[in-house]
Amino acid sequence: MGRLSAKQRKPYDLDSIIDVAVRVFLERGYDGSSLEDIARAAKITKSSIYYHVASKEELLSRGGGRAFDALLAVFDEPNATDGSACDRLRHVLRRTAEITVEKLPEVALLLRVRGNTPAERSVVERRRSFDHMIADIVIAAIREGSIRSDIDPRLTTRLIFGMLNSITEWYRPDGALTAADIADTVFKIIFDGLTLKPKSA
Amino acid sequence: MGRLSAKQRKPYDLDSIIDVAVRVFLERGYDGSSLEDIARAAKITKSSIYYHVASKEELLSRGGGRAFDALLAVFDEPNATDGSACDRLRHVLRRTAEITVEKLPEVALLLRVRGNTPAERSVVERRRSFDHMIADIVIAAIREGSIRSDIDPRLTTRLIFGMLNSITEWYRPDGALTAADIADTVFKIIFDGLTLKPKSA
Repeated sequence: MGRLSAKQRKPYDLDSIIDVAVRVFLERGYDGSSLEDIARAAKITKSSIYYHVASKEELLSRGGGRAFDALLAVFDEPNATDGSACDRLRHVLRRTAEITVEKLPEVALLLRVRGNTPAERSVVERRRSFDHMIADIVIAAIREGSIRSDIDPRLTTRLIFGMLNSITEWYRPDGALTAADIADTVFKIIFDGLTLKPKSA
Repeated sequence: MGRLSAKQRKPYDLDSIIDVAVRVFLERGYDGSSLEDIARAAKITKSSIYYHVASKEELLSRGGGRAFDALLAVFDEPNATDGSACDRLRHVLRRTAEITVEKLPEVALLLRVRGNTPAERSVVERRRSFDHMIADIVIAAIREGSIRSDIDPRLTTRLIFGMLNSITEWYRPDGALTAADIADTVFKIIFDGLTLKPKSA
């Protein structure tokens, strides 16, 4: 900020502009959206947007940043740094489900970006490094003997994230389902499996 | 067809135009693509496209139809109609993985459509009816006692399809991974679970 003196009135705050930009990007695609579209949706002028950000790219980066910052912070939580790899994996997956539900439009935006501008490539790269961090925990869980070793950890990570990422496709914030419900079902499926086993041997 | 007499030469066949249209829709989004874009990508004139189809909508419907026809045909295969619900579920999931790999761009297109034109709504509805057919098999598998009953069948179906649909996001046709590899890993994860169990009691 700081482009205008403190006395001048800010007509719209940055957070609200990012909210609108994320919505417009999801509706029209990032490529198909212009700053004009965002200004129109926010009912402000383009110059009001330029007061806060330099470009459409910056709006993508800030919108996506909301989700990335939350997701990456999970890896610093005590439950993601201490304990068995299997427990750390469960913690990171549960928190990912929570953040996906809390920041549904921002996470959806991250997942739909696949373009070739520097801002989009940067999102794709951040997403990839997040995948690698999870795959490392899967590998550690295999090494410690808590999960099966006859699976490819990279493929398994992709499949598990396919499951979690699909939340952005079907989750309805006004429905009864909570992030905890989703995480519980994901855990039943991927850790214990759907097949009924005999209760005791 | 049949708009021109048999003597007139067809400059480009319908299948090739659909191939190009699917690629353009994936690159630019369905909303962001025009018949001009498709003509340019196919290096033909717009009127050559109109010789084959009436509209962009028809190209979406025919492109998506390639994937839907293949997916819906699975439900008529003997392994999808006979046997236990659990075996039928495995068969349908395995065939879905195969068709997703075989018809990667067409399935990707189906999954990315979320617009509000009649052609897009029709894709969303066909996708939904496919989901219902799978959920019915999950319910039957719970009833026959072959899979656990402490899960919501609709949510479980969505999560499993999140896994399978993610193939369109990360699969590389030039890589070493086959549809069979993917299906095997999906089955290990969702039916048996990742957690290592003691070999014998």
